[in-house]
Amino acid sequence: MNGAQALMRTLVDAGVTVCFTNPGTSEMHFVAALDAEPRMRAVLTLFEGVATGAADGYARMTDRPAATLLHLGCGLGNGLANLHNARRAHVPLLNIVGDHATHHAPLDAPLQSDIETVARAVSGWWRTCRHPQELGQLAAQALAAAQQPPGQVATLILPADVSWGEGAEPAPPPPPLAPMPVEDDRLEQVARALASGEPAALLLGGRALRAAAQLDAARVAAACGARLLAETFPARIERGAGLPPLPRLAYLAELAGTQLRGLRHLVLVGARAPVSFFAYPGKPGSLVPPGCTVHTLAAPQEDAADALQRLAQRLRAPARAPMVWPLRQVPRPRGRLSPASVARAVAHVLPPDAILVDESQTTGVLLPHFTRTAPRHDVLTLTGGAIGQGLPNAVGAAIACPGRPVLALVGDGAAMYTPQALWTMAREGLHVVTVVLNNRAYAILNLELRRTGAVGDGRRARAQFDLAQPPLDFVALAQGMGVPAQRVATAEALQEALARALAAPGPHLIEAVLPSTMRGVRLRLLPYVLGLLPSLPAAVARGVQRAVAP
Amino acid sequence: MNGAQALMRTLVDAGVTVCFTNPGTSEMHFVAALDAEPRMRAVLTLFEGVATGAADGYARMTDRPAATLLHLGCGLGNGLANLHNARRAHVPLLNIVGDHATHHAPLDAPLQSDIETVARAVSGWWRTCRHPQELGQLAAQALAAAQQPPGQVATLILPADVSWGEGAEPAPPPPPLAPMPVEDDRLEQVARALASGEPAALLLGGRALRAAAQLDAARVAAACGARLLAETFPARIERGAGLPPLPRLAYLAELAGTQLRGLRHLVLVGARAPVSFFAYPGKPGSLVPPGCTVHTLAAPQEDAADALQRLAQRLRAPARAPMVWPLRQVPRPRGRLSPASVARAVAHVLPPDAILVDESQTTGVLLPHFTRTAPRHDVLTLTGGAIGQGLPNAVGAAIACPGRPVLALVGDGAAMYTPQALWTMAREGLHVVTVVLNNRAYAILNLELRRTGAVGDGRRARAQFDLAQPPLDFVALAQGMGVPAQRVATAEALQEALARALAAPGPHLIEAVLPSTMRGVRLRLLPYVLGLLPSLPAAVARGVQRAVAP
Repeated sequence: MNGAQALMRTLVDAGVTVCFTNPGTSEMHFVAALDAEPRMRAVLTLFEGVATGAADGYARMTDRPAATLLHLGCGLGNGLANLHNARRAHVPLLNIVGDHATHHAPLDAPLQSDIETVARAVSGWWRTCRHPQELGQLAAQALAAAQQPPGQVATLILPADVSWGEGAEPAPPPPPLAPMPVEDDRLEQVARALASGEPAALLLGGRALRAAAQLDAARVAAACGARLLAETFPARIERGAGLPPLPRLAYLAELAGTQLRGLRHLVLVGARAPVSFFAYPGKPGSLVPPGCTVHTLAAPQEDAADALQRLAQRLRAPARAPMVWPLRQVPRPRGRLSPASVARAVAHVLPPDAILVDESQTTGVLLPHFTRTAPRHDVLTLTGGAIGQGLPNAVGAAIACPGRPVLALVGDGAAMYTPQALWTMAREGLHVVTVVLNNRAYAILNLELRRTGAVGDGRRARAQFDLAQPPLDFVALAQGMGVPAQRVATAEALQEALARALAAPGPHLIEAVLPSTMRGVRLRLLPYVLGLLPSLPAAVARGVQRAVAP
Repeated sequence: MNGAQALMRTLVDAGVTVCFTNPGTSEMHFVAALDAEPRMRAVLTLFEGVATGAADGYARMTDRPAATLLHLGCGLGNGLANLHNARRAHVPLLNIVGDHATHHAPLDAPLQSDIETVARAVSGWWRTCRHPQELGQLAAQALAAAQQPPGQVATLILPADVSWGEGAEPAPPPPPLAPMPVEDDRLEQVARALASGEPAALLLGGRALRAAAQLDAARVAAACGARLLAETFPARIERGAGLPPLPRLAYLAELAGTQLRGLRHLVLVGARAPVSFFAYPGKPGSLVPPGCTVHTLAAPQEDAADALQRLAQRLRAPARAPMVWPLRQVPRPRGRLSPASVARAVAHVLPPDAILVDESQTTGVLLPHFTRTAPRHDVLTLTGGAIGQGLPNAVGAAIACPGRPVLALVGDGAAMYTPQALWTMAREGLHVVTVVLNNRAYAILNLELRRTGAVGDGRRARAQFDLAQPPLDFVALAQGMGVPAQRVATAEALQEALARALAAPGPHLIEAVLPSTMRGVRLRLLPYVLGLLPSLPAAVARGVQRAVAP
């Protein structure tokens, strides 16, 4: 068999049965190999950023890699931003990047570029295959690398002549790699710090944000009076009824500072030590307060869930988390669309087992608050800060979990990075409801302009954040790509549109037109920002009571 | 002044007065500096691939660099494909890529990535500035590098603290660099080869494709009986009435082989030795026929125009090119849309001094044939093969040449790579008429699948090239981004829509729906492919006569 056929067999034998594609001439033999391998589902995208973001979303929901099929260095380049997000999400992902035939490369044809250099920027493993005979083995190595805990991006560069060359053999699947257990010594150290009675918090990230681990973390917290926090941008966090209060560390460093103030021990569980998202003049980058010791219970590649279970046992924690959110439907919102009423509408309609892809930026700041008593769901967030992740992630999540409704909440600016994802949703008939939160601005940059201390008379600078001229019509854009769409301007209309769209199969887009935040965004943001403060333990308790009270 | 202000001053003092932007938090001080510098036009784009492609288009039309403003490594990544095209176009271009503050980088915040590694893949010069005091000088160095003949991509990485840090000074503009003159010895060698009487051709590229150089090349060809050819994908080629027959080397290697067959001397004038765009099993990559000697009259960084003039003198060439295309309007096309009728419609309406951005792929194969007697115009093509160049190039060309109409012809697949360019056209009120040639397929890949010898039963493979399900509605997409649009399905309607759109100011989009080329593309392509054959000298002469005859 030829290289492409052996590669295809190696992939599907190892359980990689979805490939997000945007092929070109150098990938034709891999495309042809699809005909003989019905186990592989090839999902065509119109832009590589959709393919890579979809593979990320798929991996977040399955913990298994999807493949991407990309056209040379430029195709990889187009997919780079969402590969960056995937890298930060610590997901397994395998890029197959076609290249010119090995004998063609020295000719420096127009599409020739240095693929390995680009691959290196986002991949934990990258290699160019030189002979069809080694392709099967190299593919298995790539898969092993991709699945090395906690998961990483692996990039296999596939010259056209390796793809069409004969004499290739499929390789057996690589052995599964479990995350490493945490050593007893380390567990003991953390247990002592927590038992000291000094102010402490557990910062959960990665796999520690799955339901069982959260509940064990809540038992630990109850046993020693520690606070619980989740990392700011989780790859996947389970949320809703039956789970303990677990506020996310705020994006704004000022607020995160409030959340962490006074801590003497910060225990990392699958998370990294918190740092400010950006630097600001005269402000510290690390968010760890002075006098606070950072302990690592479990690094991202270690078994955080097991460590939390053992820690709970060691601390003689209660058998069950003492406080979890009840199932309670948020009342229907009324009136103008605002960050609060959008969050209420979403929380009101959220069906059980939904996947909420959250790239809602400034408008979404109250979502965690209102959805905490919703039916159990997963939330995927913008792990690496490279916008354009939401719609592609939704594609991948929907393909990963065909029975589950996917709700993607994306800001207008972010939606315009990878709008092509809508076409793939229509083509594949995916049950994805997209809400574009259209405030006609890069609203967050209005805030950031002031936070960085940059000044000017403002008119020419502020024009750089203004998306109102001309206004984007997301209904037209969606319909142009085959996705039914509608526009709403009130909370009631949003809630009704959401309910209808979630009940019908297939994709749907709702454009929620919000008041422009071009002016006074700071003032308007303030209440939502304060809404984050229930992340402090006392306030959390009050929040729970509020949520339980009628 | 702070770093951003010094950088801004250095740029505008050096004549860099356009910046295509998509800023984020780390670029806020550069954005703020816009307020104090009205000489800088900041053109906001919704996606970095639009910014970089626009800067490429701007440089092709002005021979001067525009700047881009990109947000960290991911922003640079999103712009990578069009930077690749710019690199292949040999244009001057300056990327300003914001980065985290130098003290923030070690914290590995979510958006942290290895920017230099990504920059290296496309830039001839790249550097990270570490101190505000050195920013002005480094910016001047970057501009000097960008403008080093024939032009290249320079990338200046600008950490946030260098941008906001005080004590910076603007630097004076770098001295202009002229292309190097060709040495007499080399000119003499080429003259002797051409005077030998053996079959010879001049392959023109780069600046040798401007009108004056073409006419001198035609004089040389007349003096020694050599053929003239243009490189396959020129950055910019002047065309139309008053210019000599100058067929482009065909994209399909089989046809290029026919064009080059029998040559004993191939003289490169600003072009590179021809190679096959892709490799195919069992076919050679170099297109230079056996027994043919390749001579370099002028490398891309050398003064090709001057060399041609001197060569014409040395060969005692006639004072004028003996054969140039007359101004002759192609008759109005009728009936179904096809590659031929689309080309006729464009040729029929093309106004004087138009800029034709050609990313029309399979549908555009007859354009050069029909537009050769149109009024004088410039054509910009897909230099690097990374699709998604057309719409952004049109943005940049329109900003470079406000008085000239821009006509962008793009395939449906290519248009979906960077559709966000339409919004910038509307926002800036650019006079760009976009024709999307919608055959609902990646038609070229149908052809390439066979050319690469890949086989299968075809259904699952061919689905990878099919854009019909769901059909893309480019009228809706354009309207969604504020660009008036209409759909046409006949040649008459296309011609009328084109005439109307070209006569009105501002942007307009025309969706030309062509028969799907999902089946039988090869057969259907054959006549057009044969249409390329008038590139052989005798056929060219016949073509000229045909064009002159009523």
